[in-house]
Parts: sequence; C-alpha cells; structure tokens
Amino acid sequence: MYSVEVRDRIMIAHSLPDPFFGPAQGKHGASFVVDVAFFRETLTAQNVVVDIGAALDVLGKTLKRLAYQDLDTLPEFAGQLTTTEFLCKYVFDRMAEAAASGALGADAAGLAKIRVTLHEHDLARATFEAPLARRA
Amino acid sequence: MYSVEVRDRIMIAHSLPDPFFGPAQGKHGASFVVDVAFFRETLTAQNVVVDIGAALDVLGKTLKRLAYQDLDTLPEFAGQLTTTEFLCKYVFDRMAEAAASGALGADAAGLAKIRVTLHEHDLARATFEAPLARRA
Amino acid sequence: MYSVEVRDRIMIAHSLPDPFFGPAQGKHGASFVVDVAFFRETLTAQNVVVDIGAALDVLGKTLKRLAYQDLDTLPEFAGQLTTTEFLCKYVFDRMAEAAASGALGADAAGLAKIRVTLHEHDLARATFEAPLARRA
Amino acid sequence: MYSVEVRDRIMIAHSLPDPFFGPAQGKHGASFVVDVAFFRETLTAQNVVVDIGAALDVLGKTLKRLAYQDLDTLPEFAGQLTTTEFLCKYVFDRMAEAAASGALGADAAGLAKIRVTLHEHDLARATFEAPLARRA
Amino acid sequence: MYSVEVRDRIMIAHSLPDPFFGPAQGKHGASFVVDVAFFRETLTAQNVVVDIGAALDVLGKTLKRLAYQDLDTLPEFAGQLTTTEFLCKYVFDRMAEAAASGALGADAAGLAKIRVTLHEHDLARATFEAPLARRA
Amino acid sequence: MYSVEVRDRIMIAHSLPDPFFGPAQGKHGASFVVDVAFFRETLTAQNVVVDIGAALDVLGKTLKRLAYQDLDTLPEFAGQLTTTEFLCKYVFDRMAEAAASGALGADAAGLAKIRVTLHEHDLARATFEAPLARRA
Repeated sequence: MYSVEVRDRIMIAHSLPDPFFGPAQGKHGASFVVDVAFFRETLTAQNVVVDIGAALDVLGKTLKRLAYQDLDTLPEFAGQLTTTEFLCKYVFDRMAEAAASGALGADAAGLAKIRVTLHEHDLARATFEAPLARRA
Repeated sequence: MYSVEVRDRIMIAHSLPDPFFGPAQGKHGASFVVDVAFFRETLTAQNVVVDIGAALDVLGKTLKRLAYQDLDTLPEFAGQLTTTEFLCKYVFDRMAEAAASGALGADAAGLAKIRVTLHEHDLARATFEAPLARRA
Repeated sequence: MYSVEVRDRIMIAHSLPDPFFGPAQGKHGASFVVDVAFFRETLTAQNVVVDIGAALDVLGKTLKRLAYQDLDTLPEFAGQLTTTEFLCKYVFDRMAEAAASGALGADAAGLAKIRVTLHEHDLARATFEAPLARRA
Repeated sequence: MYSVEVRDRIMIAHSLPDPFFGPAQGKHGASFVVDVAFFRETLTAQNVVVDIGAALDVLGKTLKRLAYQDLDTLPEFAGQLTTTEFLCKYVFDRMAEAAASGALGADAAGLAKIRVTLHEHDLARATFEAPLARRA
Repeated sequence: MYSVEVRDRIMIAHSLPDPFFGPAQGKHGASFVVDVAFFRETLTAQNVVVDIGAALDVLGKTLKRLAYQDLDTLPEFAGQLTTTEFLCKYVFDRMAEAAASGALGADAAGLAKIRVTLHEHDLARATFEAPLARRA
Repeated sequence: MYSVEVRDRIMIAHSLPDPFFGPAQGKHGASFVVDVAFFRETLTAQNVVVDIGAALDVLGKTLKRLAYQDLDTLPEFAGQLTTTEFLCKYVFDRMAEAAASGALGADAAGLAKIRVTLHEHDLARATFEAPLARRA
C-alpha cells in the first residue's frame, strides 16, 4: 500500500460546553496542524498516489472555511462538541467528497483510504481514518 | 477508526547483557519520549476517544515507576533484556490494564486498540500495538 | 555563555481588533508551545544554569493564568492587542519577576538573560529576549 | 505487533518529465529523510524486532547507491518517473531482499512487514508498506 | 529584542564543482526548509515585529525564483559555489532589499536584524544573520 | 555572521549525587541529541563555514568516548556532576581543541564561535557557546 501525506494548518476558537471537559468548557482556542494521508494499492500512470497540487488545493479550501473562526458561531457545527476527533472526521468527509466528485483528479477514484490527523500541540493529536468506497 | 495520542517521557539507565548488543551490553541509558495512541471505532457521547486527562494520569503513573531508575535493579525486570521493544509492551500492558479496570473512564470499555511508541532519540523508535478485548 | 531551555504549552482564544490583522481580527485562537531559555555566564555549584524544577513550576503557574482562557476577557490585557510577540514579553516579565523574587532559587540572581519563544504552529513563532538586571 | 523504525537520508537530483508535474518537470532535487520500519508479531530471543546495526548497514548501502546522484542518469531508473512514491518502493524492495538473503540477520525470516517513508520536506511525505513472504 | 520567524521551502538541483566537496561535486539536489527571522527592539503600534503576510509574500516570491530550478543554469549564480551558506546570504539580501524598499511594510524601517536559516535535512542546517542599516 | 550546524547523538548512564537533583540523584540515563554550530564572519574560498565532513568526524570521535558509557566510571569525570550543561562544555572544549589543532581543516582558524546544544528529550535542552581565540 502506498500513501502520500500533506500538511496545512488553521487557528480557531471554540468552547466545549460539557462538564466532561473541565477547564476547556469555556471559550478557548487551538492551532491545528493538519496532516492528510491518501492511500492507494497501486500507483497511477504517473507513479503517484494523488495529484498533490489538487490535494493541497482541496485541503486549503476546506480549512479556509474554518480558519480564524469561532467554531461556536458556525451553523454547520450547531449543537456539536467540536473536539479534535470530531474535526478530524469533518476534514475527512470533505476529502472523501472531493475524491468522489473528481476534485482530487480522475485518478482519485482509485484511492483506497484517507487518514486525517490534527495535532493540537506538541503533546496531543487525534486521527480519523477510513476506507473509501470505490467508484465504479 | 478514530485515535487520540498523548506524550510523556522518562530517563532511565539499563544494560543489555547479551553479546548481540555489542557496545550497548554495559550500563548506559536513554531518554524515552513515549507516545500512547488509543483507538475507537466510534466516539463517545462527548465526541472523544478517551478521557485525555485520565489517559495522561495513567501514563504518568506508569512512567513514574521507571523514571530516573536503573532498570537492572527493578525486580519486575529481573532476567529480562529491557530493549525498547520490550518496554513498549510493558507500557502497553499497563495501559490495557487501566482500560479494563476503569481507570481510563467508563467509556474505555469501547477502546478497540492501543499503540505505544518509544522514541530512543531522533533516529530510532519502537512500537507495540494490539487490539483490546472488549468488556461485555 | 550557558543556557537551559524548557517547554510547556497553552490553548487560548483571543481577537486582534485592528484592520492590520485582516482575517485574524475576529475571535479565533491558538495553541502556543512555549520555550523559556535561561542564560548564565558560569554554572552554579551544582553545575546547572537554573533549578529546572523551579523553572517549570514558575512557567506552569504563569501559563495556568492564561490556559483555556479568552484573553479578550482578562482585565490585565484590556485594551491590548495580544499578539504572539506581546505574549512573549508577558511571559518574559513573569519569569524575570520570579528570578528577582527568588522563586527560581537563590542562584537565579546570577542569571544573565532570559529568552521566551511562543510557537503558534509549525510555520510561525515569536521571541522576546533581554538581559536581566543583576541583583546585588 | 512490534516494530522498530530507523532513519537515514540522501540528497539527489532528478526530473519528472511529464506535464502532470508542472513546475517539477525540469531538473530539480530533494533531500529525502528516509524512515524504515520493520514489523514482527513476536520478538526474537534477544527481545528485538531486528538487528538495528544490520538494518542501518543495509539501509546505508541502499541509499549510498543514490546519494548525491542525478537519478536521471542511473540505468536502473531509465524510463521511470522517480517520484517519492516510486522511490519508497525501490527502498522497500532492497530491504525485502535483505530480509530474504539473511543480510538483516537470521531472525529477519520472522519479519512480518516493512514500511518505508520518504519525507520530501516539512510538508510532504510518501510511504510504501507491504507484508513480507515468510521463509520456510 | 523581539523576533518573528516564518517558514517556507524549495526543492532545487545544483552541483558543487570543487574537489573540496567530494561526492557532492556532481549534480545532486536538496529540499531546503527556509526560516526567516525578523528582529526589532520595540514593537510597532500593532504590537508586531513585522507584517507576517507581507513577510511571507516576499519570502514566497524570493523562493519562487529558485523553486524546482537547477541552480547551475541560473545566470545570477554563474561561477558561484551555491552552498547552503551562500544561499542563506542570497535569501538574506532579498529580505534586506524588501525591508529597505518598503515591500515589508512602512514599519519595516525599524527592523534591527534578519536571520535566514536553511535546513538541508534533519542533520544539517546553515544560517546567515546581520543587522540592517536603519532608514532615516 | 554565518553558521553551519550538524547533529549526532549518544546514549549514556550517570548519576547526579547531590540532594539538589532530587529523583535524579540515583543511577539513570539519557539519550542526548547533540547539535554543534560553527560560526564565521566570512566564508572560506569554497563558500563554506567549515568542512562538514571533518566536523562530523571530530564530533563522532568525541561522542564515541562517551557512547554507551556510565559516565560515573570515566576517570575524566571523577568528582564532577555531569549535568547536561557540563556536558555541553565538555563537547565544546573538544571542538575548540579540534579547531585549534587543525583537525577541522586549515580554514578552521577563521572560526569565530562554537555553540553546542544537548537535547535531553522533547522538553529540555542545554547549550554552551563561546567565541574562539583566533590563531595568528
């Protein structure tokens, strides 16, 4: 199995309004360094897993919707606890949509799996990874 | 599959008394940066994989038994070659016990897997990872 | 010149309400990885620059006042643009006070300089460094 | 499953003569930081995954054939697009040959899997990983 | 003294045609991770050292002239040994010109110093740093 | 001012037998990642600060005397508290001797300064830096 992994980053504010989160219940924030890995069983005709330029473009557009935002004010996250784990899945879903729509290039139909990692800081990070349904 | 990974560290002395280890047979030591990753198929009601505070607390207590020690003098390692690989498994076992005992929180019953990584220095690291038996 | 540098971290929210900051004018946040370096011309009787335990304790207490806070709501920052540069100086001032008060140990009177670095994320960081007035 | 991962590095020139690669079609180059991870289900009698000395020696010899070279001039890469993904597989094949030949030590017959990672720079990296056929 | 440091990167080919460089005399290449630090004695009215957006823009344009190039073919480097040290100075000169021309913003007249670091790979890096002449 | 910085590493055991060191008084150990930076005002005829091959060779030989050792048993450290700060100075002295003896190449007479950094682990590091006396 091959993979290619690329990196981008965002800075956001949010709160985690559940007693479970102790001191993190109030409004605070995070810099998230975001790694997205794309997996394929075999390489494309150009010996790559994915068009890195397209991957970075899709990732950049996905993160731009969140960058410098207070996530508590975004309608799409209403009523959600926007944990790092949850945000990994959010980025994964946007990447999987892009693979399905062709925004990652025609060859993205052959992607086997995507993994998204959000680093909160030097001591903690979360991931979500899942296989992709193959397009016919 | 989701994961959350946290980091701590220890400094220890030990020897590796087997000719296989060449210059590392005598008493020497290591700083180990320790990453522990917890995996779940689905998130808890709080949108997390595990209670990070509890995870750090259990990891800290596990490492405190080793910190600033000469592993050659600890009864639990008598007769063992305390390689980095072996120590990964040692930390894994303590983490798996904590998942089973409830020390990682009630939701830790749903953990699917744990992975422990010990970084010896910038050029070498070892891991142990295994699925956890689910509690009924 | 000798130095010792230690690391801690915080997650905060804030806004930068000046048109200069473009998309960062609104409420957003950051994880700051904080490095504090202490400098001395000669070592103490114990061959150290500073008591690392005391240094970590003072740094931890300094950061605890900011951790998981919305800096816009803290009276001490009222009317201030809490840029990364500004926060470097804020942490520096607390460290310099601790050196002067004895909270960093009696030997801290011999410290020549302190440097504070805040890493915003993988691509950007700020520092403030300055000599310390020697205590008689 | 246990693993041990070691690191080395090379600096090379190459071109990627296909319109797919845009500005990277011409002669350029890269520093590749190379991580090779070896996996085993159980440890050897010495509590290790692999003889790290042998692993570093084999990796060093593999990379020496590429170090400071213009890959476009090497017969073994004639007609190939030497992408980072392709080079991961090239290094993997040399490591798998060494495991099969005994160059990684007699115990290397028990290796389950190898993973090769090439870091292009701080924002991008590729991997190839595959199980190894067990020797009888 | 305050500083802000930002990061970008390039991949280039070159040769170092002098027997001093041994195996690096032939055509090879490098990924350079480039850090540029800007220093000021006091902050601007916005509590910053420099306009980071402008700094990244100038750095990006500087590196774009080199990105994916064979430095041996660029007229401006004719007859030069394009070592990492030399390239640090090249980037420094472009940054100092931008500070003088106003491309880094009006406040850049107050910059005291610039430092440029090029990381060749995980084990080696070079820097050039120098004070800037103040504009009247 | 130019610099070039190179990296190597060692694993050692030692004790710090003074009540000041609390839990680190007993036999323990460390992995030290060692960075040595060489500084010059102007470059040599080959556009370098120092012969990196010679620098790595001298650093490797210096560290080999310590690698996999229990520092408490080495005559040259008898009666010394082998703190990280102390070891920075020890490595610095070997490097300065090499600059003076010609072991770093004839051009090393022009070196202005050397800085040695020992990283204990991800959260702590020490340095020693000092100017070099110029040879006539």
